[in-house]
Amino acid sequence: MFNDATIQEVNEALKSAWDAFHIYRKCSLKERAHFMRSIAEQIESLGNDLIITAGKETNLSEARLRGELARTIFQLNSYAAACERGEWLEARIDTAIPDKAPPKPDIRKMLVPLGPVVVFGASNFPFAYSTAGGDTATAFAAGCPVVVKAHPAHAQTSKLVAGAIIKAVEACHLPKGVFTHLYGRSFEVGRALVTHPYTKAAGFTGSFTGGKQLFDWANQRKDPIPVFAEMSSINPVFLLPGKMRVSAAAIAKQYAASITLGSGQFCTNPGLLIGLEGNDLTTFITTLAAKIKTIAPVTMLNKGIYENYADKRAQALSLPEVQVVAVSEVASKEMQGIPTVAVVTADVFINNPVLHQEVFGPYSLIIKCKDMRQMTDVARHIEGQLTATLMATEEDTKSNAELVDAVQNLCGRFILNGVPTGVEVCLSMQHGGPFPATTDSRFSSVGADGIKRFARPVAYQNWSNELLPDELKNENPLGIWRTVNNELTKEAMRFYS
Amino acid sequence: MFNDATIQEVNEALKSAWDAFHIYRKCSLKERAHFMRSIAEQIESLGNDLIITAGKETNLSEARLRGELARTIFQLNSYAAACERGEWLEARIDTAIPDKAPPKPDIRKMLVPLGPVVVFGASNFPFAYSTAGGDTATAFAAGCPVVVKAHPAHAQTSKLVAGAIIKAVEACHLPKGVFTHLYGRSFEVGRALVTHPYTKAAGFTGSFTGGKQLFDWANQRKDPIPVFAEMSSINPVFLLPGKMRVSAAAIAKQYAASITLGSGQFCTNPGLLIGLEGNDLTTFITTLAAKIKTIAPVTMLNKGIYENYADKRAQALSLPEVQVVAVSEVASKEMQGIPTVAVVTADVFINNPVLHQEVFGPYSLIIKCKDMRQMTDVARHIEGQLTATLMATEEDTKSNAELVDAVQNLCGRFILNGVPTGVEVCLSMQHGGPFPATTDSRFSSVGADGIKRFARPVAYQNWSNELLPDELKNENPLGIWRTVNNELTKEAMRFYS
Repeated sequence: MFNDATIQEVNEALKSAWDAFHIYRKCSLKERAHFMRSIAEQIESLGNDLIITAGKETNLSEARLRGELARTIFQLNSYAAACERGEWLEARIDTAIPDKAPPKPDIRKMLVPLGPVVVFGASNFPFAYSTAGGDTATAFAAGCPVVVKAHPAHAQTSKLVAGAIIKAVEACHLPKGVFTHLYGRSFEVGRALVTHPYTKAAGFTGSFTGGKQLFDWANQRKDPIPVFAEMSSINPVFLLPGKMRVSAAAIAKQYAASITLGSGQFCTNPGLLIGLEGNDLTTFITTLAAKIKTIAPVTMLNKGIYENYADKRAQALSLPEVQVVAVSEVASKEMQGIPTVAVVTADVFINNPVLHQEVFGPYSLIIKCKDMRQMTDVARHIEGQLTATLMATEEDTKSNAELVDAVQNLCGRFILNGVPTGVEVCLSMQHGGPFPATTDSRFSSVGADGIKRFARPVAYQNWSNELLPDELKNENPLGIWRTVNNELTKEAMRFYS
Repeated sequence: MFNDATIQEVNEALKSAWDAFHIYRKCSLKERAHFMRSIAEQIESLGNDLIITAGKETNLSEARLRGELARTIFQLNSYAAACERGEWLEARIDTAIPDKAPPKPDIRKMLVPLGPVVVFGASNFPFAYSTAGGDTATAFAAGCPVVVKAHPAHAQTSKLVAGAIIKAVEACHLPKGVFTHLYGRSFEVGRALVTHPYTKAAGFTGSFTGGKQLFDWANQRKDPIPVFAEMSSINPVFLLPGKMRVSAAAIAKQYAASITLGSGQFCTNPGLLIGLEGNDLTTFITTLAAKIKTIAPVTMLNKGIYENYADKRAQALSLPEVQVVAVSEVASKEMQGIPTVAVVTADVFINNPVLHQEVFGPYSLIIKCKDMRQMTDVARHIEGQLTATLMATEEDTKSNAELVDAVQNLCGRFILNGVPTGVEVCLSMQHGGPFPATTDSRFSSVGADGIKRFARPVAYQNWSNELLPDELKNENPLGIWRTVNNELTKEAMRFYS
């Protein structure tokens, strides 16, 4: 049994994190990277126990869990490398000009950590977006202590991972408060964590309702703090006519797999497929329907997710204008998400907010447009998204500039001829998009740029070389990239010392 | 007479900005820079008229206005240069790894503009933080159309500058909606602007009440938007004992000038001077008092600012524990801010929120501490600030690490042995700090990094070289810095094309 943290436990966790902040923020980039690599090693040493526990708690397959665990380890190690490279510090140096009127002082700027970060574990990624996931790893890289609230659906998995982090804290001789692990099913725990005066930022992956509530609490504080909530996305896919003419059936097969991957429990699941009425769309629908009918339902993460899927799916299908195209014909068991595809006209879609809601699971809605103008109109009526995809020939893309513009404007990742599922962990990744996909489209929760969410710039004016942080010293002892008098360079400042 | 914009005018302005956005965002970096330089030229060609008008509306001296205008021109030109250099785009490229399992696609990321930006003119900087000021210049650099609400205290000045921008819009053949100028004394205009669906961000410099209200409206929207409000700062100065031993009188003279510069109407005015009880502080106070008594009061910007100063000063001085140290003895006229310094003990300061409020004008409060521990305690009780200053020897700084830490943690710019007034326009400048100094400590409103406030990343996955924006093409036609497979480079990608 995992008891909800009491208010006193929340207070203790944040007090301890605040005290640890004053020590951990001064750890060098190398020390932080070492700590992150040490966490990766400790997690690896948990072995099969971790996979077995997570499997029991989430119904995810062993292969999926092993893949996700490998990704989590890769995140820790690659963000550690990025932490050490130091480009995220955005070091800028402008040297003094004493004979300017008035004299220009020496000014040097770099990012410093915000303070304790609260991370809320995600239900659908027990490793990669949970206890030692991307938010935790980037916060540690930035120099922030972390308080994790375990997701109640996989509290035991979270406990195991937390144990590994605590071992790494000890092995690296860091103060205990650098990491605290709490439990909480009630929203009171979340509120206490986000509104605590020592909390300086929060990371969240989950439902719109949950994320928006945290965002509101954070902004209603006496001193508002940033909340990076990745909330809901239906990831529209635009099927352009030139591409459909040559590949309608092939695209349908590709998308049958993407829609049902992991029982559709990905934030990048393609929930909208937008095409032009006509023979090619008919071919697409027929092929997609035939595939979907043969795909076996898969047990969903937990009862809450399953019931939510059943409700939202029923809600969408209950509209008289929505026609079911295909439902899996393979026998299903309790708590299994039934693969489903439906179709509706663009007019109905545009005027019906219910159809814009995320249906989290193996579901997708086809939108039939009369012409390209209407397809562009659909794009303009879609809320902010993590991803948007064009299935298009070079010619399609060039001759539909307005549509391409409208689509780019609504998403964080813009895919050409691919599927949105599958999020690469690399610097160029953008996992974030205009509201309501996330609460802050200017940041990414995947890739090393995520470190910048938990840091802010400080400019040091007129400090002596000796007193400056190593990152900003003339001799550039860390060998990092810096912008010196408007020029990016890794060189030491021989002429200014 | 300048009539408040009607709701219809606000709607028209934003509709026009939204339409212009789709054209302006596609303008190349060079075209945007050309537009910004053209604004600078048009403003310069306004000549003396502009200075005379601004002088009448703001009571600022000709020298000050000429200086501020030069700075405004410099901002436009230097942000134009930064726009062209393109480092702010944060271009990142990760090339495909087809034989990875699953295959890794080609992903390329850069910042794209958010959309129409609303800029609220500042009362205390009729040029540099108003109509064609830093917010407007950085929004244009980012690729965003701008709607300016003129500050009612210098509406005629604002109109002249707006005329220059409109001429530049025409000269550059840009759509009219790239820039709109509106008037508004009532808060309804501000609310209509910030809550309009086409508004995607806002910039503001002014009072805490005004900035916080805009921030709240923005966050209560169906789709919250970022508001960059620079609001209130009392810019604490810590007088460390070693430095005071050798320079108490010299520091007092330096600060008498900084406190009263421009009648104290700068957001970086030093409003708190924190020292240790004893002979050196007595020398400091005596010298500062003698100076302050001889400094002539100066007419303040407008009646509202003057009355606010008189009120807030009276409020602070009315506390029985606050002792007046010096008041200017030079005869004053109506609407002049009377230079004033007071003193209070650290205990009283810590427990009295009234004393933490900004008193916008030529006023500063000395805080007497019993020892360094209490000085650190004071630092820990001060809200977020734009700047904080240490007057300290190398030895002072080294032997008071806890204080130095606490002070760095509360500010955006950390000054050693200087005065906070005077904000250099350069890349390393940070003009922004933890709440309530600004609403988002992660961004700066001065320096080219301010461009990033109005942009968000988009990742292009699997796009052909031909279809990618120039910034991300293999051959790097713009010659900008990019991070290619985790290496910063200006080179073309010969091996990947």
